[in-house]
Amino acid sequence: MSVCEQLEIISRGAVEILLEKELIEKLEKSVKTGVPLRIKAGFDPTAPDLHFGHTVLLQKLRQFQQLGHEVYFLIGDFTGMIGDPTGKSETRKALTREDVLRNAETYKEQVFKVLDPEKTKVVFNSEWLSPLQATDLIALAAKYTVARMLERDDFSKRFANQQPISIHEFLYPLIQGYDSVALKADVELGGTDQKFNLLVGRELQREWGQAPQTVITMPLLEGLDGINKMSKSLGNYIGINENPDDIFGKIMSISDELMVRYYELLSDLPLVELEKLKGGLKDGTVHPMEAKKALGRELVSRYHSTSAADVAESNFVRRFRDNQVPEELVEITVRSEAETMLLCKALAEAGLVKSNSEGRRSILQGGVKVDSKKVADESCEICKGKEYVVQVGKRRFARLKVE
Amino acid sequence: MSVCEQLEIISRGAVEILLEKELIEKLEKSVKTGVPLRIKAGFDPTAPDLHFGHTVLLQKLRQFQQLGHEVYFLIGDFTGMIGDPTGKSETRKALTREDVLRNAETYKEQVFKVLDPEKTKVVFNSEWLSPLQATDLIALAAKYTVARMLERDDFSKRFANQQPISIHEFLYPLIQGYDSVALKADVELGGTDQKFNLLVGRELQREWGQAPQTVITMPLLEGLDGINKMSKSLGNYIGINENPDDIFGKIMSISDELMVRYYELLSDLPLVELEKLKGGLKDGTVHPMEAKKALGRELVSRYHSTSAADVAESNFVRRFRDNQVPEELVEITVRSEAETMLLCKALAEAGLVKSNSEGRRSILQGGVKVDSKKVADESCEICKGKEYVVQVGKRRFARLKVE
Repeated sequence: MSVCEQLEIISRGAVEILLEKELIEKLEKSVKTGVPLRIKAGFDPTAPDLHFGHTVLLQKLRQFQQLGHEVYFLIGDFTGMIGDPTGKSETRKALTREDVLRNAETYKEQVFKVLDPEKTKVVFNSEWLSPLQATDLIALAAKYTVARMLERDDFSKRFANQQPISIHEFLYPLIQGYDSVALKADVELGGTDQKFNLLVGRELQREWGQAPQTVITMPLLEGLDGINKMSKSLGNYIGINENPDDIFGKIMSISDELMVRYYELLSDLPLVELEKLKGGLKDGTVHPMEAKKALGRELVSRYHSTSAADVAESNFVRRFRDNQVPEELVEITVRSEAETMLLCKALAEAGLVKSNSEGRRSILQGGVKVDSKKVADESCEICKGKEYVVQVGKRRFARLKVE
Repeated sequence: MSVCEQLEIISRGAVEILLEKELIEKLEKSVKTGVPLRIKAGFDPTAPDLHFGHTVLLQKLRQFQQLGHEVYFLIGDFTGMIGDPTGKSETRKALTREDVLRNAETYKEQVFKVLDPEKTKVVFNSEWLSPLQATDLIALAAKYTVARMLERDDFSKRFANQQPISIHEFLYPLIQGYDSVALKADVELGGTDQKFNLLVGRELQREWGQAPQTVITMPLLEGLDGINKMSKSLGNYIGINENPDDIFGKIMSISDELMVRYYELLSDLPLVELEKLKGGLKDGTVHPMEAKKALGRELVSRYHSTSAADVAESNFVRRFRDNQVPEELVEITVRSEAETMLLCKALAEAGLVKSNSEGRRSILQGGVKVDSKKVADESCEICKGKEYVVQVGKRRFARLKVE
């Protein structure tokens, strides 16, 4: 593929390419000589449980593979096996060699759903870091100044807030940079939060007489809420090990705007098609729900299979149809003297059932939903001053106000 | 010797003892168990050319030896063999193992003029530092924070002035501190400029479950000018390898105040005698020149021999007598029309010789000195508006003004 075409694919969704000019030169040389570029991305050695946020990077690595380049999937086991020597961090317990190897297997299971195993070199940085002597590390530490290290965003904030920074934390970016030297990386990928560390790699490579790697930063994917970064702790994530129905359902639940973003960062849809899609959404020739279905199908297919995607879609459609709340609801207001009111009574007064007792019966038979949740208790009460979407049987809907 | 007596000797001339309370406990334990304390002092691995400024520390180490304790003379060859990995420092070229051993021999030659070789253990820190892995150094670096390291005086100044500090410089105090762990030092001595590093040793020992070493800082000795720190570059030093006449003469040249300081920091004179001496100087029963002679004799004896001291003293006395300029000089003013005047003519006009030609003869015979320097040239001229101490023969002196 031509340099221009490659660059277009590489740039898709990327936040920064430092320096693009250098990348073009590298691509030109690669095209000319037929020697693929060496693409590096580093990963934690802890047991992964990847969500779609992580796959933004994997997706980019995969694109490099499709362009014929070599991907080095680096597992940073060296520092993982040290753990956090301050003992302050619960999450940074020292890992054994066995832990690391087991976690690497778990990684492979997950990442090879995105990456091509044939074109992925899984490497452990302990390979070149474990033999390192204290003297080597001192020489490495000599390559960078305290002031420049303190420019890293999180360090400068902690320093300003007088939160402790242990000196060994200054060594880790250097070690990560040294990995680029050891791998002779042409390109390193990382999240925007990794930019500083990736740039350290450039400098160290220069010190070792290598051409500095091109740094490509990828955005931190927004979670299902469309606002916060996707993360496990916020619960706004889609795990790549989730079942087809959940993946499909979650994709269907996102906003139209976020869908476009997910298309850009997660989908394999070619750029031309993506532009067409955006146009169609704009001029109304493509219905957002259909576009979401297509994205859901693509992603379920990737992490499960095409047939799983088909099943997930039809499951969703059925559930959706069954659960669908009409867009235009009849609004009915009922009056209550007390602060609460029996649901069965409210349904009768609203005319959704003929009487209190029919209301009670409907509830007991499981035919009543309030705000899409089935009500099982006949003595269920609703509150004055609130509004509810109620459903009786399959077709009777109303927006019920209690005043 | 009792703890009290020991403490008095140890305290002599010291700037700080941190913590004295702990030192007392250690001394008590040592007296009780008969186990000597382990005293550490670190030295550069570069070829030494020691002057009296360096011997302040050696003197204190020697006192510890006299009190029966074990002195560890630590040569910091580990970092010396790394050199300055930034390549910025000319003086910090990497040393070879051979360099270090040769320098160690030069050290021994010099320091054993002060220290008791039988009670001195010369150790190299490469012994325990060379086997150190990068991981060990990371764990060490985790023990200290960036903010606390930046509290070190020189670091904080450089940081504030935006002068670069390489990250490896943060590792050196930790390495020095780790030496104390490796040696299980009970006490570490250093100049006041070393206080920060010595205190790091205390903290690291605590981390390793050892009792923290007592830190004793010694003053930086003033040079012959009595103002600046003694240093080679300022030329205000006495080298321990200087010849007896120079050592003796330089001691004789210092101020009375500085002499007391030198007594305190360099002499072996017992504290009681020192107090007596101070009293005698105060009430005039001891002449400062006699006190200086005694100090000169002591120091020449130490670095050469008693007989060398005797010779140096009598040499000095003779030179002094021959060169002595009377304290009260006759003041004679001669008038000159021109800007300069022939010396022989001035002598004649001042009445120091009978005629110009006797003046010329005296000059040619080497019998005339101007400002203590022999004049050889009969056509020597002196300048209008100046003042000279002139001497003709052994006894004729005058302060000669030309107006």
